[in-house]
Formats: sequence, C-alpha cells, structure tokens
Amino acid sequence: MSFESFGIEDLPIRDELRGKSPYGAPQLDVPVRLNTNENPYPLPEPLVERIAERVREAARALNRYPDRDAVELRTRLAEYLTRTGGHPVGAGNVWAANGSNEVIQQLLQTFGGPGRSAIGFEPSYSMHALIARGTGTRWITGPRDEDFTIDLPAAEKAIAEHRPDVVFVTTPNNPTGGAVPSETVLALYEAAQAAKPSMVIVDEAYVEFSHKGSLLPLLEGRPNLVISRTMSKAFGAAGLRLGYFAAHPAVVDAVQLVRLPYHLSSITQATALAALEHTDTLLGYVEQLKSERDRLVAELRAAGYEVTEPDANFVQFGRFADSHAAWRKILDRGVLVRDNGVPGWLRVTAGTPAENDAFLDAIRELKKEQEQST
Amino acid sequence: MSFESFGIEDLPIRDELRGKSPYGAPQLDVPVRLNTNENPYPLPEPLVERIAERVREAARALNRYPDRDAVELRTRLAEYLTRTGGHPVGAGNVWAANGSNEVIQQLLQTFGGPGRSAIGFEPSYSMHALIARGTGTRWITGPRDEDFTIDLPAAEKAIAEHRPDVVFVTTPNNPTGGAVPSETVLALYEAAQAAKPSMVIVDEAYVEFSHKGSLLPLLEGRPNLVISRTMSKAFGAAGLRLGYFAAHPAVVDAVQLVRLPYHLSSITQATALAALEHTDTLLGYVEQLKSERDRLVAELRAAGYEVTEPDANFVQFGRFADSHAAWRKILDRGVLVRDNGVPGWLRVTAGTPAENDAFLDAIRELKKEQEQST
Repeated sequence: MSFESFGIEDLPIRDELRGKSPYGAPQLDVPVRLNTNENPYPLPEPLVERIAERVREAARALNRYPDRDAVELRTRLAEYLTRTGGHPVGAGNVWAANGSNEVIQQLLQTFGGPGRSAIGFEPSYSMHALIARGTGTRWITGPRDEDFTIDLPAAEKAIAEHRPDVVFVTTPNNPTGGAVPSETVLALYEAAQAAKPSMVIVDEAYVEFSHKGSLLPLLEGRPNLVISRTMSKAFGAAGLRLGYFAAHPAVVDAVQLVRLPYHLSSITQATALAALEHTDTLLGYVEQLKSERDRLVAELRAAGYEVTEPDANFVQFGRFADSHAAWRKILDRGVLVRDNGVPGWLRVTAGTPAENDAFLDAIRELKKEQEQST
Repeated sequence: MSFESFGIEDLPIRDELRGKSPYGAPQLDVPVRLNTNENPYPLPEPLVERIAERVREAARALNRYPDRDAVELRTRLAEYLTRTGGHPVGAGNVWAANGSNEVIQQLLQTFGGPGRSAIGFEPSYSMHALIARGTGTRWITGPRDEDFTIDLPAAEKAIAEHRPDVVFVTTPNNPTGGAVPSETVLALYEAAQAAKPSMVIVDEAYVEFSHKGSLLPLLEGRPNLVISRTMSKAFGAAGLRLGYFAAHPAVVDAVQLVRLPYHLSSITQATALAALEHTDTLLGYVEQLKSERDRLVAELRAAGYEVTEPDANFVQFGRFADSHAAWRKILDRGVLVRDNGVPGWLRVTAGTPAENDAFLDAIRELKKEQEQST
C-alpha cells in the first residue's frame, strides 16, 4: 500500500490518544520468563485431551452463535466459587467475559464512563486506569502507605473528597503482593456508599494464592459490591482469556446492557468448561506455586533483599537505586522479570523450581556485583 | 443472596442506560431458525478434526498469554483477502478481534467517543448505533431512499451538515440486503474528508454473498478508509466470534492504543487458523447459499411478495400491513424469521434447501390466509 510515511498522528484519532503507546509487557525471547504472572505449569495432558474433546463438540455447531448468556459456564463458575469462596452463589450472581479486562471494561461502561470517575490505590494493576481512560472515565490516583498497604484514613478521605463512581480494590494487590484485610474493604465500601453511592470492585485475580480467603462472603447484603476473578492464574489458563465476576444479580443484569452480544465464543465456553472439570488438579499446582513463592521470599531475604508482603504468585523485591538498570542486569542473565515502574522495586513471578533457581542465581550475582562496586 | 427486590434501577448505573433492554434476537427453540443470518451448514468433519488438533496444540501452552498481536492469524487473513478481494494486503494492514462488534468498538474508541459523532444510513446493522452509544459516541441517523438504497445527495448533505467523525457504510446492507456501489462509497469518502476529515468504515460482513466484489481496492491511497469483515457468515463460524478489518497500517497501529491487551485468546486464534486452512470448502457452501438465496427471491416474488435488492445470505421481504403480526404467524408455523423493526418488512436468512422449503410453505400459507381475509 502507498502512503508509506503516513502514521498514527496523521489519522483523526482522539486527542487523548496522541503520543500514547500500546499497553503491554515486552514479549522477549528469553530462557526464563517470570514477568507476566503466568502459571508455569502447562495444563495436564488429560485436561488438554478434554479441551480438544469439548472443542470438537462445540466446533460441530460453530455455524451457530454461542449461548449469549453462557448459562452452563456461569453455573459451573458459581459452583467453583461456592465450593472455594466460603459463600454460596448461583449462575445469576456470576458473569463472564474475555479476560478480567473485558469484565472491568463492561463494569466501567455501566457504572463509569464520561462525566464519571473511578479511584484506585496505586501502585496497583495498571489496566484499571487504562480501561478507565478507554471508557472515558476520569481516573483518580488514590494513596497507599509507604509499605504499600492501603492507608485507610487517607483512602477514606480521598473517597469522601472525590466522590468517585467506582472504587477499585485489588487483593492481593498487583504488583506489590499483599492481600487487603476484609475490614479495610468493608470500611472502603461504607465510605463509598456514604459519598455517592458508588460501586466497589474488588479484583481478586490472585486470591487463590493468598494466605487469606476470598472476600466473597462480603457480597451478602452489599449489592454495590463486585468481586472480579480470572482463570488466567490459578487455572493456568492465561491463553484462554476468561475473566468473571460475582455480584448481586442486578449487577449481572446491568452489564448486559453494555456487553457486546455473543461476546464469549462457544470455543471459549467449551474450553473453560473443560478446565473447570479439572479444578482439583489445577488447585494442586496452586499449592506448589505457593510453596515456591514462599521459598522465593525466604531466599530473597537471605540474599539481602527486601520483599513486600507476599500473598500472590509473585513477589515484589528491592530495593534498587535504579530498578530499571537492575531489571536490565537480571535480563542479561537470561531472566525476564517485571519493572512495573515502582521506584526501587521489581516484581518476579513464581515459576517452576528450576526457573526460580535461575532467578535466584541471577539475583545473588547481582547483589555480589553491587557489593563489590560500593 | 438477599436484597431480592433490588434491581437494575437501584444500582448507580449511567443515566442513559436506565430503562434500556439488552440487545439480542430472541433465542427460541423452534424447528427452523432463519433469524440471525447464520450459515446453516455445519463445518465439514475434516475441519472439525483440524480445529480439535490445533486447539489441542494451543491448549498445551494455555498457561501462557496468547500472541498479543496475533501475527500468524493476521498473516493468514491478509492472504485470504489478497486472494479473494482484488487487492494485495499484508499482516500490517489487518487487525482481528472477538467478532466484528469488538472491531467496531475498538474503532469507535479510537476515532469516536465522547464529544465525537458517527453517522449510519438507516435501517442498517443496529449494532453500529448501539456500540456508538456504548462508547459515548453521538449517533446520527442518516437517510436512505424509499427503496433502501443510499440517497447519495441526501447522504452527502447530512455529512456536510453534521461533520461526523465516523461514517458507517454497510454493504451488502443488513437488513435490507443490497450492496452499495463503489462509486457511492467513493463519493461518501470524499464528502467525509471534505467535512472533517473523518474515518469511513465499510462493513462488509456479508460481502462473500454479494454479486458485486469487495471494496478492498478502494483502500489504495485512502488511509481514512476501513473495511471490516467477519468469519461468522461466509466461514460458517458465528460461534467463533472472529471479526477483522483491513486498512492502512497506521489504523492498525492506532487501534492498539485502545485494544485490551491479549484480547484474542490462543484458542480463538487456533480455531480461526484451522478454518482458514479450509477456505475453499467453506466458499463452496457460500455458492450453495447464493443459489438458495436466489431461489428464495424467485419463490417469494412468485408467491406475490416484494423483496428488496438481494446481495447477502438473507432476503428482506414484504410488504405487511403489520409486520410483527406476520412474524408471529410465521413463527406459529415453526419458522423463526427476523423482525428488524423496518415497518412493512421482515428478513429471512437463506438456510438449507429443506429449511427454505419450510419457510416458503409457511409464507405461501400466510399469503393465502391474507387473501381469504380480505
């Protein structure tokens, strides 16, 4: 095609997109990739076969649109939550979409959007702010304590002052790793209701890895609360893009006003259903990863690093005078970790024992190098 | 859960969503369903097996995020377009998402949105207006002629007057069926550039069924033009949710500023790649459906009905004094067609020969009944 010199800036794009770059961690070809909080364990072969089987069945009706309401999938997700979350939920309480990103986008299209605002306590999952921008929702950066926990009085004050329409609470928090106590979430919910009322979205993407349990029981009597989840991490299915949430049935009804019809393909539904048949095996891997996470924490500390409260399948470690330079040096040793832009800190995903060993070797060398140069 | 009487209206949803209903054709359990323009032919068994095979392979790496840029899929889609569209395109010209609805949503997030507007010439694909609403884009209803073709002088006048940021042209048009001449699209593009400049999105969801060719060659030298496509219809894969577009590479770069990262699952990519290996077989079904469409047109006319220009895998037929009552009577005979809300007209999808026979029987009976009652 012609117009070779024509670029994004020559197109009539929205002003706020000018000069921006697409979101995404570098996809580098490196021996040890511990940068995107993926589960390092491939799905067990019987599950792979079951996926092929269920997809084959779904493919035979692929000429038809999928079940628009994904009833069977939502029923199975509700059963999983009921069994593991300490609170009974039904299909009417559950909604699913293409990754928790799409779940959050639908929630912001319903409860945020132009003329409305959302708050998150940062550093946290950066997609919350980016999806807010994408949906025209004004983003408010809420405070955290120096140890990266939520400073409750400061957070309550920010909610009272800004009166946001949506409040995000990520627990365990990404990238810092700590789970938010139930009492803190309750207090934030109360503050949000007093200020507006507004929706509180608790992002539990990593909750299966936490020492603390799910906050699902808080849904009781709180119709403006949403608990969002994903199959990317605990289910080892980042490639599947299946996010979901639990909430009052009215919230499920409400997002259907904005969801694109037939948003969830019959292939996605079939694959997720297969994975849910193998929940016990997959949760076994979660236990292994929790041990590895704990080992990473212990070894990092033994090597002279600090780590922040670790409740997920990753660990935030530091401190570095120049964290990006440290990231680069670890990468030079064949290990890709994540620089989330938190000054002084980096994030490493718990991988297989061998991957974690490679990371620990790299990081011990780095420490030695730093000590020699000072 | 409690709060049983709590409903959508009790939630802090956006004002413009209040009182609205979710989009979607009724999913009724009826012997003959000719209401959503699905391809009636299930995928051939060798393709079903190939899908199972490619998905099995993808499932073995499901713990990893998918290729965020879907490079292999975009390369194969570009090859398909190059081979069938009369104009060479490469992977850099092509972008894919979960259904053409998500393609359109991404385009409107990039080029529409709050403070901006989009125009479509109605009746047309109603999701254009709904996705505009969902993205905060002001919607403008453009005119059509009485025979449902685009009234070019009136359309040019509307563009000059409203100066929309996005212009939708659906060809063949849904639900009315006619393809838009290349000259008309060119004139609308010129009018849109003179007024703003704005993006012109040509929705070619049904183009494989048209007597006229694709408008892909118009991309040459027109960086503000986008041609959107889907695998739902010609590829018989409505359940897959795979939409795509071709445009200048700058447009592909631009939508990456708003796309949710990893929006397209590795399972979806694997399934679409399998389907693209079987293009020739699937296009064979398209030829059968075109004949059936032509037969529907001939038989409808022979039975005393009017049809509008037919260029897709469906036919708009009428006229009815009360089209919803007619829809109901056809449904009573076990055949589900679509009432798109175009007064006097209904839409029927070309099904298998047996399905079309059932429809034609129903519609002949209806005519007889009408004649007896007058």
